[in-house]
Amino acid sequence: MVTLKQLAKELNVSISTVSKALNNSEEIGEETVRRVKELAELYNYRPNKVALSLKNNKTKTIGVIIPNILNRFLAKVLFGIEREAAEHGYNIITCISNESLQKEKDSLQLLGNGSVDGFILSVAEESQINNEVEHFKNTIKQGLPIVMFDRVAHDVLCDKVIVDDFDATYNATKSLIEEGRGRIVFISNIDDISVGKLRERGYNKAILETGRLEPLVLKVKKKDDHPKKIKSFFKKNNSIDGIIAADSSSGIIALNTAVNFGLKVPKDISVIAFASKSDSNHTLPKLTTIRQHAKIIGAHAAQVLISRMQNTLTEEDVKTKIVKTSLVKNKSTL
Amino acid sequence: MVTLKQLAKELNVSISTVSKALNNSEEIGEETVRRVKELAELYNYRPNKVALSLKNNKTKTIGVIIPNILNRFLAKVLFGIEREAAEHGYNIITCISNESLQKEKDSLQLLGNGSVDGFILSVAEESQINNEVEHFKNTIKQGLPIVMFDRVAHDVLCDKVIVDDFDATYNATKSLIEEGRGRIVFISNIDDISVGKLRERGYNKAILETGRLEPLVLKVKKKDDHPKKIKSFFKKNNSIDGIIAADSSSGIIALNTAVNFGLKVPKDISVIAFASKSDSNHTLPKLTTIRQHAKIIGAHAAQVLISRMQNTLTEEDVKTKIVKTSLVKNKSTL
Repeated sequence: MVTLKQLAKELNVSISTVSKALNNSEEIGEETVRRVKELAELYNYRPNKVALSLKNNKTKTIGVIIPNILNRFLAKVLFGIEREAAEHGYNIITCISNESLQKEKDSLQLLGNGSVDGFILSVAEESQINNEVEHFKNTIKQGLPIVMFDRVAHDVLCDKVIVDDFDATYNATKSLIEEGRGRIVFISNIDDISVGKLRERGYNKAILETGRLEPLVLKVKKKDDHPKKIKSFFKKNNSIDGIIAADSSSGIIALNTAVNFGLKVPKDISVIAFASKSDSNHTLPKLTTIRQHAKIIGAHAAQVLISRMQNTLTEEDVKTKIVKTSLVKNKSTL
Repeated sequence: MVTLKQLAKELNVSISTVSKALNNSEEIGEETVRRVKELAELYNYRPNKVALSLKNNKTKTIGVIIPNILNRFLAKVLFGIEREAAEHGYNIITCISNESLQKEKDSLQLLGNGSVDGFILSVAEESQINNEVEHFKNTIKQGLPIVMFDRVAHDVLCDKVIVDDFDATYNATKSLIEEGRGRIVFISNIDDISVGKLRERGYNKAILETGRLEPLVLKVKKKDDHPKKIKSFFKKNNSIDGIIAADSSSGIIALNTAVNFGLKVPKDISVIAFASKSDSNHTLPKLTTIRQHAKIIGAHAAQVLISRMQNTLTEEDVKTKIVKTSLVKNKSTL
C-alpha cells in the first residue's frame, strides 16, 4: 500500500500538496491535482485511517484497557465488549496495564492520541491502591469518554458497570446457613483488590447476623502452594461444613480437598464459588457457582460507551449499572 | 491536551503552518514561528504520537492479533509478548479476530495504517480452513514484518514460533505404553484446528508403531455436554487404562470421571493432558501435563519481531523457532 509520503516523493512535491490535491483544494493548481490523482489511482492509494482520524476525529474504534489478561473474568468481559462493538460496527483495540499505574497512563495516551473515540477499562491494582485518578479525568477532559467496569474509581464522574459483589456473597452465605451449615469458611486469593474485600464483607455480614456463628477466613497469596495451604487449613479446622470461595481456583481446590478427605459433597459439606460454567464442569460433583455474567458486563459497557460517543446520553446522565450475579445451584450444595 | 488543529484555529493559520513552525521550517516567517511557539507553550502542547508516527514511521508499538481471547494458551502468549516488549520499551496493542478471516483482515488494516511497526499473530480458524494468506503477504509487502505463532500459515515467508505438537503427543503416548498401558484413549475438543490434528497424529503414530495396540479416539464438540459425553464413552469402552488429552478441559474432566467410576488414578488409569500448572492444581491427584510454555513462546515472538524491526535480521534469515513442550510428571501417571 502506497502512502502520501511516497506519492509526494515520487511527484517531488510536499505531502500536504498531495493531501490537498486529493481533497480538491483550490490552493493547488489544476495540473498538480491531475498528476497527483493519476499517480494515486495507479498505485491504488487508500487514505490512511489514522490520518483521517486526526482530521475528522472519528475512528469508530474503542480502546479497552484490561489490568490482567490471565484473569478469566476480565478476558470474558473483553470478549463481550468485542462482540457487542462489532454488532455496532466498532473496532476494538486493547492494551494491557498489567496492574501498573504507569502502563495504564501510557495506554490512555497511546490510544488517546487519535486512535480511538473512547475507552472501556477496569482500574489497575496500583492505581486503586494509590487512589490515582487524574489520568482518567484528563482523558475525559480531552473529550474521550470512559466507561469503567468491575474495578471502578468512585471519584471519577463517568459511566460504570459493576457487579453486586457484596450482595452475592451475602446471599450465598445465607443460603448455606439456611442449609443448616454452621462452620462456613470464606476462602479467597483476591484479597488485595477491591472486589475481593467487598466479597469478604458480604460473607461477614451474613455470618454475624446470625448472632451465633463466627467468621472463618482463609486468605491465599499468589505465591502460596494453594492446594497445600487449603489442605492444611482443613486439617487444622475440624468439622468445616461449608465453603464460600471468592475465586474459582480456591473453590475448585477446596472441593477436591474435601473429597480427598473422605467428605461427601454435598452431604457433609457444601461448596459455592465465584466461577464460570466451564469451571463447574471441571469438578465432580459439579460446583455450585456465583456467576458474574462477564460477557453481559462487557456488552453493557460497550452499549453505554457507544451511546455516549454518539451523544445520545447527556452529561448529567452519568450512570452506574449493576449487573447482578446469579447463584447457579449444582451438585456441590444441598 | 491541546491539538495542532486547536492551535491553528486560535492563531487563524493552517494546521501545516503550525506544524512547520513548531519544527522551525524556513518556509514560515519568524513572527509566525514565535506566535505559534508561545501559544504551544502556554497550552503545554505535546506532539501527537500518532501524527509523529505518520511522519517518521516509528511507533515503538507492536500489533498483536489473537484469534480467541478465551483460549487460555493464547492469553498467556499475549502476556509473554507484553512482558518482553515492555522490557524493550515497546507498547502492545491487541486486536481479537474471533477466528474470523474478515476481522483478521480488518485488524491488519486498522493497526497497519500507522499505529504499529509490526505484527505478532496466530492465524484465525477461518483463514486456516480457507487457506487465505494474501492479507498477510500484503502487510509484509507494505513493510510491516509479521511473526506468526502456534497456528501459522506455511505459505507465508515470515518468522514463526511454533510448538512441537506432534512430538509432544507422540512422546506422551509412548510414556504410557512404557507404563504398560494397553487401552489408551485420545480425547480432544480442538479437532477443528491445525494443532489439534497434529496432536492426534502424534498419538496415532505411537499407538500404531507398537503393532498391537489400536487407536481409540473421542472427539468432543464445542456444543456437547463434555462431562456427559466423556462419561458415556467410559461406559461404552471397558478397561480404558490411559488417557492423552489434547486440551486441558478434556483432561480434567476425564480424570474426574475416572475417579468417579471408582478407578484409582494412577494405579488403574493414567492421565496426561496439554495443560498448565494451575490446571494440575485443580485436580486430585495432580494432573501430569504437557506444558507449552506459552509465556516463553510470547517472549520469543517479541524478540524476533523486535530484531526484525530494528533490521538486525536480514531477509534471508526468516526462521521457524520450535519451543519444545515439557512432559511434567505429577500424580496422575505412574
